Amino acid sequence: MARIVMKFGGTSVANLERIRAAAAFVRREVDAGHSVAVVVSAMSGETNRLVGLCEEAGEPAPALDARDVEYDAVVASGEQVTSGLLALVMQNLGYRARSWQGWQIPLKTDMAHGKARIADIEGDALGEAIDNGEIAICAGFQGIAPDQRIATLGRGGSDTSAVAIAAAIGAARCDIYTDVDGVYTTDPRLTKQARRISRISFEEMLEMASVGAKVLQTRSVELAMRYKMPVRVLSSFDPPDAPGPGTLICDEDDIVEENIVTTVTPDFNEASITILAVPDEPGRAAGIFNALAAANINIDMIVQSASRESGFANISFTTKEGDLDRAMKVLSEEQPKIGFKAMQSDRNVAKVSVIGLGMKSHAGVAATMFRALAEKGINIQNISTSEIKISVLINADAAEYAVRVLHDAYGLDKLPQAAQG
Amino acid sequence: MARIVMKFGGTSVANLERIRAAAAFVRREVDAGHSVAVVVSAMSGETNRLVGLCEEAGEPAPALDARDVEYDAVVASGEQVTSGLLALVMQNLGYRARSWQGWQIPLKTDMAHGKARIADIEGDALGEAIDNGEIAICAGFQGIAPDQRIATLGRGGSDTSAVAIAAAIGAARCDIYTDVDGVYTTDPRLTKQARRISRISFEEMLEMASVGAKVLQTRSVELAMRYKMPVRVLSSFDPPDAPGPGTLICDEDDIVEENIVTTVTPDFNEASITILAVPDEPGRAAGIFNALAAANINIDMIVQSASRESGFANISFTTKEGDLDRAMKVLSEEQPKIGFKAMQSDRNVAKVSVIGLGMKSHAGVAATMFRALAEKGINIQNISTSEIKISVLINADAAEYAVRVLHDAYGLDKLPQAAQG
Repeated sequence: MARIVMKFGGTSVANLERIRAAAAFVRREVDAGHSVAVVVSAMSGETNRLVGLCEEAGEPAPALDARDVEYDAVVASGEQVTSGLLALVMQNLGYRARSWQGWQIPLKTDMAHGKARIADIEGDALGEAIDNGEIAICAGFQGIAPDQRIATLGRGGSDTSAVAIAAAIGAARCDIYTDVDGVYTTDPRLTKQARRISRISFEEMLEMASVGAKVLQTRSVELAMRYKMPVRVLSSFDPPDAPGPGTLICDEDDIVEENIVTTVTPDFNEASITILAVPDEPGRAAGIFNALAAANINIDMIVQSASRESGFANISFTTKEGDLDRAMKVLSEEQPKIGFKAMQSDRNVAKVSVIGLGMKSHAGVAATMFRALAEKGINIQNISTSEIKISVLINADAAEYAVRVLHDAYGLDKLPQAAQG
Repeated sequence: MARIVMKFGGTSVANLERIRAAAAFVRREVDAGHSVAVVVSAMSGETNRLVGLCEEAGEPAPALDARDVEYDAVVASGEQVTSGLLALVMQNLGYRARSWQGWQIPLKTDMAHGKARIADIEGDALGEAIDNGEIAICAGFQGIAPDQRIATLGRGGSDTSAVAIAAAIGAARCDIYTDVDGVYTTDPRLTKQARRISRISFEEMLEMASVGAKVLQTRSVELAMRYKMPVRVLSSFDPPDAPGPGTLICDEDDIVEENIVTTVTPDFNEASITILAVPDEPGRAAGIFNALAAANINIDMIVQSASRESGFANISFTTKEGDLDRAMKVLSEEQPKIGFKAMQSDRNVAKVSVIGLGMKSHAGVAATMFRALAEKGINIQNISTSEIKISVLINADAAEYAVRVLHDAYGLDKLPQAAQG
């Protein structure tokens, strides 16, 4: 039978009752004859508690790199505890199981303590152990750096651990058990019309993550795409004897009928900046964006338009709301050099994106979007597109309405069942 | 300057306030020019919490050895957290510091997971690091077993870690910071006459531990004696800029004037068993003690006396109160084979011991003890002795009084100051 990886997030191992529920899902796959490696997060709340202790220990923050290494030693203990507890529960059910810490696998990382990237995983010992019928319970989120110290992968890193371990042992798939039962056509809290998607491509998931959807961490999807590792998102709150089908995130080639639009994804965490009357000379716009990049501020949805005065242009773009104040400060400091006249900012904006693989081969997708919004009187401020995504910036007050309008306009409540797998 | 080891127990690192206090003691030694390795316990309450989680995960207890390995992975996380936090606090004070987990040192143990013994410590890397001015914060209580898994040393194991690490790096001494300011002539809660002892020998400390005194774990004292490693017990609740002198536990040769009696130590955790009319033939007594040994029940203070019937003897002995019921059950089952007439047991007993190196060369110590107790009408049930200890079993109700009587009889409230160092 196949090797598979099962990953359980913090809410799925929040306490011993939830750990026992997770064990029931693991047991099901083992009883079906699979070789199983499990990846676990810290019990929910535990990482926050440990990070809080580190912050308290470290105030006022010193400028020492060594700090990140100790942060890692403290915070990685959360996953260590869960891995041992789940192994105990599995043993108690009569199964052979053992915990694997990052340094034991070993899952090797780079030196970027606190936000390390995976460099290499030696999957042989792990693969042999599970083929021998011993369930491997791996502590997620962590590995061992070249300095032989514990390194953590940054928030959400357990998803990345799971996909990377799945790739390293040549797993048939990686199942991510979480507190939602799959990926939806849009946020179900915004409309009852939202539908669970049966299959979605890596590319679409990446676009969703890029506009703020929080189902899976971006890096885990990137890895899955690189290794063509099928990832299934499903709920650990379903009954273990009858889990739902979840959503399979897979290669484009494994999706029989591509949707033109698969999801409508709002992002409320945006702000816009407009710079008025920038001299229309080579290098002026570059000066703006260089200054922001130097301050490590990401921007998006750039639009340049003619100013009323000839020889000048207006430039507007968006940034994350949390970066807005810093961006405005950087630009103020650069104003004399760049020579623009004024700046405006707006926090009351939202980005709404429609994402779908089928856009690549279908015309008229953007036209449908603009017409649907115009008919309802929703004004579009900025537009940006990628090959499989169209995003519009609108007034935040209209965003929920826009989501419902677009969900309806693309008929997402009646996605063909065949395409849903 | 010298290499020294400083160990902080659970109450001394109970929260960040206490960890900062511990850091102040560490800073003092580093500023004095010493190369410092620190050994820390889990934050107080944390080990109990983790053990509780393991027990909850493991019910009903399975008969798998693998269980102990997972217990170790879970429980060792407590010391991991403290080591990282203290390193952060030291870094924040401007010192170079790093945490060392058991597997990083490495502190190698045997395979007895859950109660492992230290097999070997490679102290070179640790010693070089601290001589380079980097404070080493070692997670106590843990090491790495030959299976490359985390192993814990059993309760109180951090004392043992500290002494073993001190020996491995050739430290000048090992300072154990705890919640008492030293070793006392008797439990200060029993009499205001109790005095802190300035110097006490390894042998005396071992005898104290053997009769239930809880200042240091027995194995840590055994190790200190083997390596002649001076161990100082002192309080982490003293002001860090003016710590008390504590008690130095050292080789007999380093104690100028030996006390005839150094401590009076009560043990309330005793019970006695008397077996009546055992046939006075070779092998009968052995049958009793073999059966108890096979059940892993330790016994002490054995007395054999003539029975009223000729050809029979009475045998009495003591055991730990917690083992009494099991011992009585074992003996009932053996009764037909051994052929004794009846058994009696008594929980309401206590053992009071006087311990002192000087006994080896002084006569009359026992006589003083028996006379002092007799004068106060305290009846002695059993007696046992070692080279430097005399223990009597008495009624538990009289034990506190007996402690005060003996403390007074040996003049422990006025131990010569010279001998106290």
